[in-house]
Amino acid sequence: MPENINFTYECIAQDGNARAGVFHTPHGDILTPIFAPVGTQATVKGITPDQLEGVHANLVLSNTYHLYLRPGPDLVAEMGGLHAFMQWPHPMLTDSGGFQVFSLNDLRKIDEDGVTFRSHIDGSKHRFTPEKSIAIQEKLGADIIMAFDECSKPYDRDYSKAAMERTHRWAERCLKAKQRPDQALFGIVQGGIFPDLREESAQFISSLGFPGHAIGGLSVGETKDEMNDMLEVVNAILPADKPRYLMGVGSPEDLINGVLRGVDIFDCVLPTRLARHKAAMTRTGRMNLLNAGFKHDKRPIDKRCGCYTCQTFTRAYLRHLIVAKELLAGTLISIHNMYMLLELMRDARQAIIDGKYQTFAAEFLANYAK
Amino acid sequence: MPENINFTYECIAQDGNARAGVFHTPHGDILTPIFAPVGTQATVKGITPDQLEGVHANLVLSNTYHLYLRPGPDLVAEMGGLHAFMQWPHPMLTDSGGFQVFSLNDLRKIDEDGVTFRSHIDGSKHRFTPEKSIAIQEKLGADIIMAFDECSKPYDRDYSKAAMERTHRWAERCLKAKQRPDQALFGIVQGGIFPDLREESAQFISSLGFPGHAIGGLSVGETKDEMNDMLEVVNAILPADKPRYLMGVGSPEDLINGVLRGVDIFDCVLPTRLARHKAAMTRTGRMNLLNAGFKHDKRPIDKRCGCYTCQTFTRAYLRHLIVAKELLAGTLISIHNMYMLLELMRDARQAIIDGKYQTFAAEFLANYAK
Repeated sequence: MPENINFTYECIAQDGNARAGVFHTPHGDILTPIFAPVGTQATVKGITPDQLEGVHANLVLSNTYHLYLRPGPDLVAEMGGLHAFMQWPHPMLTDSGGFQVFSLNDLRKIDEDGVTFRSHIDGSKHRFTPEKSIAIQEKLGADIIMAFDECSKPYDRDYSKAAMERTHRWAERCLKAKQRPDQALFGIVQGGIFPDLREESAQFISSLGFPGHAIGGLSVGETKDEMNDMLEVVNAILPADKPRYLMGVGSPEDLINGVLRGVDIFDCVLPTRLARHKAAMTRTGRMNLLNAGFKHDKRPIDKRCGCYTCQTFTRAYLRHLIVAKELLAGTLISIHNMYMLLELMRDARQAIIDGKYQTFAAEFLANYAK
Repeated sequence: MPENINFTYECIAQDGNARAGVFHTPHGDILTPIFAPVGTQATVKGITPDQLEGVHANLVLSNTYHLYLRPGPDLVAEMGGLHAFMQWPHPMLTDSGGFQVFSLNDLRKIDEDGVTFRSHIDGSKHRFTPEKSIAIQEKLGADIIMAFDECSKPYDRDYSKAAMERTHRWAERCLKAKQRPDQALFGIVQGGIFPDLREESAQFISSLGFPGHAIGGLSVGETKDEMNDMLEVVNAILPADKPRYLMGVGSPEDLINGVLRGVDIFDCVLPTRLARHKAAMTRTGRMNLLNAGFKHDKRPIDKRCGCYTCQTFTRAYLRHLIVAKELLAGTLISIHNMYMLLELMRDARQAIIDGKYQTFAAEFLANYAK
């Protein structure tokens, strides 16, 4: 495995288990804790890179499964890689494709070597292995790439154990397969909701020398308490000098709780998906902008918010766009939701630096309507 | 009728019949010739006001029929009018609702006093009269409002004559109904493709003292030559000290030909509609970005274009967005198409000022693939 010379993490402040840090990548520093918007198909839905910069996004995630099918990793490589292709000059992360492939259910078949699956688009047959996932991600060219893992059903112990063990074997194969020195490969901890499995997985994955670690298989059906318990088990083991990434988690309370337990990086489609379903995220809960009560409402979504949407438009206008089925509704609410999560993490970072994160988190959670 | 003190047109240069001018409105000067993007439901589809400013848009049109149904003129007025509601601080124009209502075909019934119609959304029954159209437009609050007219089928002489005569009677009623002094009411010339009717209509409408004139009932099924012939007949009569607005026309060659015949203002959904159907507008013709030939194309849509899309993205990326059915495709191509038409009109204006418009137009038309 080539040395990952550029990928160092510095913890600049700690408050309880919450950490404020900096992760260095070839496309710039990631100030953690941070939320990463998701650009599934090399685009955050309905949002230009200019608008992404406007919400102060830094790390952006894209999905290997989707890009593998369309437009294909060779085309992305030919275009200069994902950063150049989608014109995002800041840090990027690709997942391994595993989560999407395992979610295909009837369309996939797992064996020890990999997964055979059919495309959700045209039914064509494909195969991912740990080596193939790494090869694709090397063509895509993100700064952070992920090991090919198997996400189990959280309450099925036998399956969780088997999937975890396979994830461990695949993690070693991913490390061996990796060739590019300018990408950080993160290992992924699995183990469902079983503390002993999570412990075993965190220990094993930590032992392999990855420059960063992810916690997979959470926010997939378990309770919030179970998720938080697993974070405590895992983060007590994962080395403190590497970043910790909680995959697929994006509700404000989950972010606050994750940071409280030592998580540094989050990603989720939630802010853009909620936006397309008319819901704005705020620090006190979700707001359904289709609500008739907003028909005459001249206020912005959140009067304290500095995003373009809140600085420009009324709830009444956003509700009109929703009622009139206008595309702009999704774009404007996405802008707000992403800005909100990114600002929440910046504020969390400052609170950690100020040694006030425990109070910050407690106050946030007391005011937040789940 | 209150005096329209702010609405003066100055012709600053003329080249043949082509005019470069300035039309003063309460929300700023309109430099003509100009293309006005259409924001049907108080939004240019998928485009923020920031992006609209980025394409150097100035005058923006919105549709009275749609805004009357959703969110309703009272709500728009309560929100401070259309400019404040959609946050467009520059000049705006609303149509009369007539064209949309007459297009409802089976859903509408015309009488001398007005039109009874059913909503295309929920089938509910409504009625527009000249007075009602003006009252709605006064609540919406655009800088330029339009007389309630009847657009005929271009080749039906009897219907064209009857519709023209009704349009004339309704124009007088609109003038009487108008109350706000800060809006310019434009009269509309009708008459199908019949030169004598167009002549009669231009003379009658000109005699009423409107601060600007529109040419309606074109680009509705007649040939390009017939349209150009009608423009010549009408513009020979319409007073030179008032702006001339060709309604619903937006292809590059129609703009160039219209300017050649003395038109100052154009509007059309074409740039945004084509964008949602994968077509980019260029000075040499349309480009279907789904074309397989663009799959590996690293060039922008137009290397000479200064728009955000051309300055940022490759054809290959735009094609990927289209294939992947991503919303951003429509937004990015709309940005390009609007920029292209707006820049074309700025270049036309400069050519008129330089006394070179005849050459400019001839060269454009020679290079343009219809």
